[in-house]
Amino acid sequence: MERLMVALAALLLTLSASGDLVSPYGSLWPLPHSLAISPEVYRLNRVTFQIVHSPESTASVGCSILDNAFRRYFYYIFGDAAGLGQTLDGTGSPDELGQLQVLLTASDPECTQHPRLTSSETYEITVSQPTATLKSENVWGALRGLETFSQLVYEDEYMTHLINKTEITDAPRFSHRGVLLDTSRHYLPVKVILETLDAMSFNKFNVFHWHIVDDPSFPYQSITFPELSAQGAYHPVTHIYTLKDVQAVIEYARERGIRVIPEFDTPGHTQSWKGQKNLLTPCYNGEKPSGTFGPINPALNTTYVFMKQLFKEISKVFPDAYIHLGGDEVNFECWKSNPTITEFMQNQGFGSDYRKLESFYVQSVLDIVTANLKGYMVWQEVFDNGVKLKPDTIIHVWKGGYQKQLADVTAAKFHALLSSPWYLNVISYGQDWRKIYQVEPYNFNGTIAQKKLVIGGEACLWGEYIDATNLASRLWPRASAVSERLWSREETNDLNDAYSRLTKHRCRMIRRGIPAEPLFVGYCDYEYQGCKEFN
Amino acid sequence: MERLMVALAALLLTLSASGDLVSPYGSLWPLPHSLAISPEVYRLNRVTFQIVHSPESTASVGCSILDNAFRRYFYYIFGDAAGLGQTLDGTGSPDELGQLQVLLTASDPECTQHPRLTSSETYEITVSQPTATLKSENVWGALRGLETFSQLVYEDEYMTHLINKTEITDAPRFSHRGVLLDTSRHYLPVKVILETLDAMSFNKFNVFHWHIVDDPSFPYQSITFPELSAQGAYHPVTHIYTLKDVQAVIEYARERGIRVIPEFDTPGHTQSWKGQKNLLTPCYNGEKPSGTFGPINPALNTTYVFMKQLFKEISKVFPDAYIHLGGDEVNFECWKSNPTITEFMQNQGFGSDYRKLESFYVQSVLDIVTANLKGYMVWQEVFDNGVKLKPDTIIHVWKGGYQKQLADVTAAKFHALLSSPWYLNVISYGQDWRKIYQVEPYNFNGTIAQKKLVIGGEACLWGEYIDATNLASRLWPRASAVSERLWSREETNDLNDAYSRLTKHRCRMIRRGIPAEPLFVGYCDYEYQGCKEFN
Repeated sequence: MERLMVALAALLLTLSASGDLVSPYGSLWPLPHSLAISPEVYRLNRVTFQIVHSPESTASVGCSILDNAFRRYFYYIFGDAAGLGQTLDGTGSPDELGQLQVLLTASDPECTQHPRLTSSETYEITVSQPTATLKSENVWGALRGLETFSQLVYEDEYMTHLINKTEITDAPRFSHRGVLLDTSRHYLPVKVILETLDAMSFNKFNVFHWHIVDDPSFPYQSITFPELSAQGAYHPVTHIYTLKDVQAVIEYARERGIRVIPEFDTPGHTQSWKGQKNLLTPCYNGEKPSGTFGPINPALNTTYVFMKQLFKEISKVFPDAYIHLGGDEVNFECWKSNPTITEFMQNQGFGSDYRKLESFYVQSVLDIVTANLKGYMVWQEVFDNGVKLKPDTIIHVWKGGYQKQLADVTAAKFHALLSSPWYLNVISYGQDWRKIYQVEPYNFNGTIAQKKLVIGGEACLWGEYIDATNLASRLWPRASAVSERLWSREETNDLNDAYSRLTKHRCRMIRRGIPAEPLFVGYCDYEYQGCKEFN
Repeated sequence: MERLMVALAALLLTLSASGDLVSPYGSLWPLPHSLAISPEVYRLNRVTFQIVHSPESTASVGCSILDNAFRRYFYYIFGDAAGLGQTLDGTGSPDELGQLQVLLTASDPECTQHPRLTSSETYEITVSQPTATLKSENVWGALRGLETFSQLVYEDEYMTHLINKTEITDAPRFSHRGVLLDTSRHYLPVKVILETLDAMSFNKFNVFHWHIVDDPSFPYQSITFPELSAQGAYHPVTHIYTLKDVQAVIEYARERGIRVIPEFDTPGHTQSWKGQKNLLTPCYNGEKPSGTFGPINPALNTTYVFMKQLFKEISKVFPDAYIHLGGDEVNFECWKSNPTITEFMQNQGFGSDYRKLESFYVQSVLDIVTANLKGYMVWQEVFDNGVKLKPDTIIHVWKGGYQKQLADVTAAKFHALLSSPWYLNVISYGQDWRKIYQVEPYNFNGTIAQKKLVIGGEACLWGEYIDATNLASRLWPRASAVSERLWSREETNDLNDAYSRLTKHRCRMIRRGIPAEPLFVGYCDYEYQGCKEFN
């Protein structure tokens, strides 16, 4: 029925059967930077195996972020081990591996802190009889190492849990590795966000970019301005995020080494901010207001009083050092129609350049955020329009031809974050993960100093066509392709090896409860079973 | 961040807010043929409302297919009513509707039978105080009417369950309205199939085309030839369909008025049939067998002995009057390489025309199936290649330019089934349901007699990129677009009206447990909650 596809299937299956496609790295994803797997193999005993703090560690029982992670990974290891997919000639009857000792070296292992852009995620793993060691500076590296250790464990056909003698030294290539979810175009229940955070940790993502409000709805329940969600959410009770919800998300993310960066996009994308009176610009039809509203009104003092209060709250609620301020896609038509704004433009000497008005507004908001001791991220238009920015501003590149955009942003000495090629809401038929995977962030004309200004990237899942029904299967394992590009070495780019590891990684995600979609024809030992019950 | 999409969002939301897009037909899907909804409104009382057999009905308690459906729809009505989305000016305090009486008129209401291609699905509904009536010839029409009745019930903002005084006369435009699932490229757990049958019944589909085996795997466990699945399934125990599984699917489908037509595609697409010795053609590399195998070997008598036994079993296991025999995409290269086949070609006087060999094989299989008193469906190549076919053969059109294909098939006086424009596994970004919806099966050059030979169509969900993780959200509500095209009148083709009804229909599917994906920006009163539990 499908000539081309069937031909492709035959090709891949043949390759697979021939064994050429089976990765020597098992199911590891993303691939560590340095890795030596020996054929010597050890058994793991479900009753006696322990993940424990090393006696030499600067952390100990009571460092709850690790205590919880030890327990979580114990379940993953003994509930969800993935097949390694290679024949392992064990050297005689295998010994037993008794423990994984986790050894933190920093004087402050950061047990109670939040992860930061500059947090070390470096770790080393030594698996050798009788005790494996995971060594890292702090809890963040330990969390990454625990994920890797769990991926090293596999079942043989007797379901014996095994691990090979292994040496790993690993650290991320980029320090900002994010996933953007959009909770405005469709509301996402908190549990869907938590599930995504779980899946992110399986892929070593470390930033949840929460595009929390936008034109269609305002689900964030502000303590200071409760009318924003009361009037702007799809439903004022069932389709909002309370303070408790937000805190639960932040803590769940923290426990997985994931930062939560909220985006409050202004002055455009604010149609749902109607709960705040006189905030949006009334559009005019000739002499009279048309009844519709445009972007935030930058000509009123009250706007900045409101923004100051709102961002003061946001700065407290979200502990991360950065806030994303949006600033994209401002439509000037409504501003042009409004006589108050025309007058303001004249008084300020902006002539008819509405980009100057936009810059005036954005500059004011940036100052407000700076006063709250927060750094900021903005979409690239803010840079494109020449707004004055602090040197440590992160410019989020989303437009096409990203090579030129990255070159421009870094030539101006700003930090850059890449998303243009990673709009995962956009779909096409077939294995589009390959294109996603082959993006190289350093592939632009620039000096070494410029390249260093690229701090990472984000997989964006805009919500026009996505809600709780299809989010997980749309995001995973396609976002996994982004995660390896941002974590692993530049040289890790063999599509066949990636295919072999990613198919196993996807099956592991399924065993851990994430309905990650298939890459192609095939099966998992343990298939996703759906959730509907039949009697 | 997404200029075009945001612009489109604004447009649609404005239209929606203006009320222009709200359908006068509420959430009905597919739209009945004749329909009058009055503003007079009745309440439904959860404690006392009953769905019962009418005293005049030829069916009564004990007709379990209806007894079960009454119970099922009671739950749907009181658990999952969808908003009607229109302001209803009730005429004073609304009366109560006490009952839905179901009145069957045929002397044999077919309580214990299986649905057939020629089964009547006609029904009439009269909703009027104090008792609503659903009238149909037999159980099949009653099942369709129960779905429609359940779609007429809605909640107001007080959650009072309401229904308007309504008159409906309805019957399907096409008698074969199918969904194809592919359980070979990925194995689908039985519960995923049952969930799909539920969703099909919500959309008045009446055929489950079970593409049960193909090249990648053979999950059907044959009683006569158990080695087929033992060697051909992805796993001989966990990735098979036992007789009990198949029977459960057939009965579950029957209870929803859905026929189950299995497809055993030969002579191509049979790489997984390796459990039967000497069935597949050994390919040669020059003088020697290459170790690979091609299509089924048509040159051996044993092939036909095997086929006779296999189809005897299949004919018993699957009660439907039709079997789909496939016959598509036969690759001649392996046959050409094989000396036994070359000799057979010479003996039969086929020259070098391998289409004649294919026809010889297909003809033999058709004769076998006919001897089992079954009708058959075949993919269009069998027709294209000039195989002699019984007059009632159904030709399944799947190639592009379907207008010409339909014209050719019906000009030759064969029945035609359309799938070319409805390969729902193929995806693109955006609202592709619109293109799916706008297909008109009669849009080809042909006489009225030719048009009558088009018995319907099927939405096909080939399994290269689909398994239990993404099946439901990929299929629904996109397949709903096919269901309305095949059920409703040709004139039912207003995209705005369809959008309004389909968004509500999708929210209703979610309340009934089907994770149907969103059409666009917006929300459901009751969002899908995912299935992972968090403590």
